Amino acid sequence: MNDSNTLKFKSLGIYTQHEHVVYMREDCHICISEGFQALTRLRITKGDISIVASLNVVRSDMLALDEIGLSEAAVKALTAKEGDEISISHLEPIDSLRHLRAKIFDHTLDYNAYGEIITDIVKGEYSNIHLSAFITACAGGKMNIGEISDLTKAMIASGERLRWGTDAVVDKHCIGGLPGNRTTPIVVSIVAAFGLTMPKTSSRAITSPAGTADTMEVMTNVDLSAEQIKKVVERENGCIVWSGTAQLSPADDILIRIERALDIDSAGQLIASILSKKASAGSRYVVIDIPVGETAKIRTKESAEQLKKDMEIVADSVELKIKVIITDGSQPVGRGIGPALEARDVLDVLRNRDGAPHDLKERALLLAGELLELSGKIGRGEGSKAARELLESGKAYEKFKAICEAQGRFTEPELAPYSHSVTADRSGIVSRIDNRKIAQLAKLSGAPRSKKAGVLFCAPLGKRVETGDVLYTIYAESEGSLRYALDYHHANSDIVTIQ
Amino acid sequence: MNDSNTLKFKSLGIYTQHEHVVYMREDCHICISEGFQALTRLRITKGDISIVASLNVVRSDMLALDEIGLSEAAVKALTAKEGDEISISHLEPIDSLRHLRAKIFDHTLDYNAYGEIITDIVKGEYSNIHLSAFITACAGGKMNIGEISDLTKAMIASGERLRWGTDAVVDKHCIGGLPGNRTTPIVVSIVAAFGLTMPKTSSRAITSPAGTADTMEVMTNVDLSAEQIKKVVERENGCIVWSGTAQLSPADDILIRIERALDIDSAGQLIASILSKKASAGSRYVVIDIPVGETAKIRTKESAEQLKKDMEIVADSVELKIKVIITDGSQPVGRGIGPALEARDVLDVLRNRDGAPHDLKERALLLAGELLELSGKIGRGEGSKAARELLESGKAYEKFKAICEAQGRFTEPELAPYSHSVTADRSGIVSRIDNRKIAQLAKLSGAPRSKKAGVLFCAPLGKRVETGDVLYTIYAESEGSLRYALDYHHANSDIVTIQ
Repeated sequence: MNDSNTLKFKSLGIYTQHEHVVYMREDCHICISEGFQALTRLRITKGDISIVASLNVVRSDMLALDEIGLSEAAVKALTAKEGDEISISHLEPIDSLRHLRAKIFDHTLDYNAYGEIITDIVKGEYSNIHLSAFITACAGGKMNIGEISDLTKAMIASGERLRWGTDAVVDKHCIGGLPGNRTTPIVVSIVAAFGLTMPKTSSRAITSPAGTADTMEVMTNVDLSAEQIKKVVERENGCIVWSGTAQLSPADDILIRIERALDIDSAGQLIASILSKKASAGSRYVVIDIPVGETAKIRTKESAEQLKKDMEIVADSVELKIKVIITDGSQPVGRGIGPALEARDVLDVLRNRDGAPHDLKERALLLAGELLELSGKIGRGEGSKAARELLESGKAYEKFKAICEAQGRFTEPELAPYSHSVTADRSGIVSRIDNRKIAQLAKLSGAPRSKKAGVLFCAPLGKRVETGDVLYTIYAESEGSLRYALDYHHANSDIVTIQ
Repeated sequence: MNDSNTLKFKSLGIYTQHEHVVYMREDCHICISEGFQALTRLRITKGDISIVASLNVVRSDMLALDEIGLSEAAVKALTAKEGDEISISHLEPIDSLRHLRAKIFDHTLDYNAYGEIITDIVKGEYSNIHLSAFITACAGGKMNIGEISDLTKAMIASGERLRWGTDAVVDKHCIGGLPGNRTTPIVVSIVAAFGLTMPKTSSRAITSPAGTADTMEVMTNVDLSAEQIKKVVERENGCIVWSGTAQLSPADDILIRIERALDIDSAGQLIASILSKKASAGSRYVVIDIPVGETAKIRTKESAEQLKKDMEIVADSVELKIKVIITDGSQPVGRGIGPALEARDVLDVLRNRDGAPHDLKERALLLAGELLELSGKIGRGEGSKAARELLESGKAYEKFKAICEAQGRFTEPELAPYSHSVTADRSGIVSRIDNRKIAQLAKLSGAPRSKKAGVLFCAPLGKRVETGDVLYTIYAESEGSLRYALDYHHANSDIVTIQ
């Protein structure tokens, strides 16, 4: 490439989330000589670091003719400093896009094809348009089981893979869609207190009001490097961190952003996402909880059984030993929905508080017991009892606090300043709860981005309520968000049904 | 919404193609009180005009705290002027996205669902991520024939529909993929000279080096309003304009940008795109040419027959009378590939020049003849002869110039300043031509954005060449583009095979 294809970096401070955007004057010598126009994809290089970025052309004096601006994601990727020389060139064709096109036309891809796609995604070569096409082309049963295995393997290969000094590395996962189902911090605390190794990496929310990483972030740091995770786990047997910064299965974090924008989760991506994270974290034994309910993510026993079967096959292909359990998903777990509200439920259970949510506690004990047994370190039928002892003795809570401290801090959760309580307009029995709408309400109130926002839910199925009793309280960090959630509440009378 | 949610517009002059982007200071009162973050989708209102835009947050003094920036597409949509008050609010959920999600999961959609999706797309409510998912979810045979009809109808309903004072309104379409196949200007000239009405609206290139609109733009204006088109056609019986500015089937223009980024064309979208444009332009009789060849867009006789059958069913449902003809697509038509180069071929045929490309002429005559017959204004078997007479007498050329003048100008095409001729490295017979690679070469040289760029092709199938004979010449408007095309040429030795 021509050496004169360089411009000087000027910081503009524009945030575009993960997208690499480059800003150049339409009348600069490069745009003129190379014929670049808005939205051309370009290769941008500083020293030996090179990224792909979309061009936005500028027709104002925001930039001088010899200057180039970059979105903050691109600044970070290039480690660019004011005045740095940045060189610009045409983007060579991205080879793996032919596999993407084949998949769009419903062809079956092999491991190498998925590998090339995932490698290019991790390198940042795919635009949002390409990523969305990949997600969509793989959704809705369009990958066969062999393809899901291959995608999972490709995702594992795309990042670091942690190794531990022991075989007794365990993990758990709950297939979301059930508001407030925050068993993970409790399970990790019990299992780590028992002596098993549980290096838990969790996602942020995809389409729900809070992921485990969002909830934990209220109480401690979750953005740890692979090296930092190793130190925490060596000291405490366990951790509960966000999977993104650790660079485990990094493609997953990129794809999840697009799934969130589309508000979809498809089975193939779901399996690849979950199992690639587990394998990358070095786990050997994994318990997977699939809650089933009319308004949960998985709605029928049949689709849960299908998912279970598929997960077992894929797990086998990546040498994970898993146990899939199918549970009741007809209503929220605990009372809080939203990061800080769920953190409070978790702490109430760990502290054995009176009035701690019973359902959350029992779910956590079931999963912890299954994990202890799956690991083979305790006899069949002994797991649940051992787990309860560790929780009720306070040993699990001690372990939880120790893990938080090892991750950098322990912070008590606080609630958002704006709230509104929704009350029953008639007396009767709570007969139906729309989990999706409850989740939507929590999202509109600001969760998971506003950590303290969400819904405190007080009307479980079967509860007798009188007119005027509080059904749920909405918390928001701004008046705008509260107003927005209330608009939704007013437009939807069937969130809780009383008969 | 709160009245305090307003900021003053400051012009930044950032071009993002069609995407609406809004720039706000991260620390402005709206971001703080509403909790907006990068890539939030927002509703932006000025007076009674309202659009959806993606937020890019700014952490520099590019904007003051009470100012808001907009991408140029958003400035245009809002007709915003420096200092205008712009109000910002949360985006209400986009209802039609549930249909999109259903389609991603392979459900069949009905007319109402396609109608809602297309309406929202035209309103600009879909981000590139949503648009890409829609294109992908509909690609590769995932729409049944009823859905393709419904999508076509929805696309017709989304824009203006032209009416003409006559029933004898004809049109033609060639299913692309065949470099240089620029029969349209010739066919329109013949048919309009005959006295039929042919209000031709053409696309710009989707994945090819030139669309008819790109080629015509070299010689005349193609961005005409519906009103201007009407005047041209009333005066000259015909026009050859870009379909975009006329607001006929506007969804199509948005979707085509995404298809171009993905470099795909799928049958369902293809049919809906073509037939919605024809019906919107008020056509009644349409001849459709499907060139078939190993490296053309349609590769086999079988898929051409399937496409023909599907098009006939959909055409019937939108009251178009069509004739589909399947032709030889084994090599480029004419000699030029790229807007200006193709324009020169067109003029040579219309001017009856010695050495005018014979294949282009004969194809144009075939199509014009079929159109004359399909309209019923001439007897069966008479069309081809009448067409030839109109062309060879110079009447078609007179009509062409008159149409160009009516559209605003007639300009003689010029070639790009940088060129390189590729010669035969052995003697023999040209036995195979890779149309896709020829097209790729023309695109890398800058076509269709650089109008004068492209490939002049001199080695048709079956031609005897000697070592050193020119096979093709690459034209480019900049050294960078020429170099880039040559890199591709060097990496691909099988563009022309000599045996």
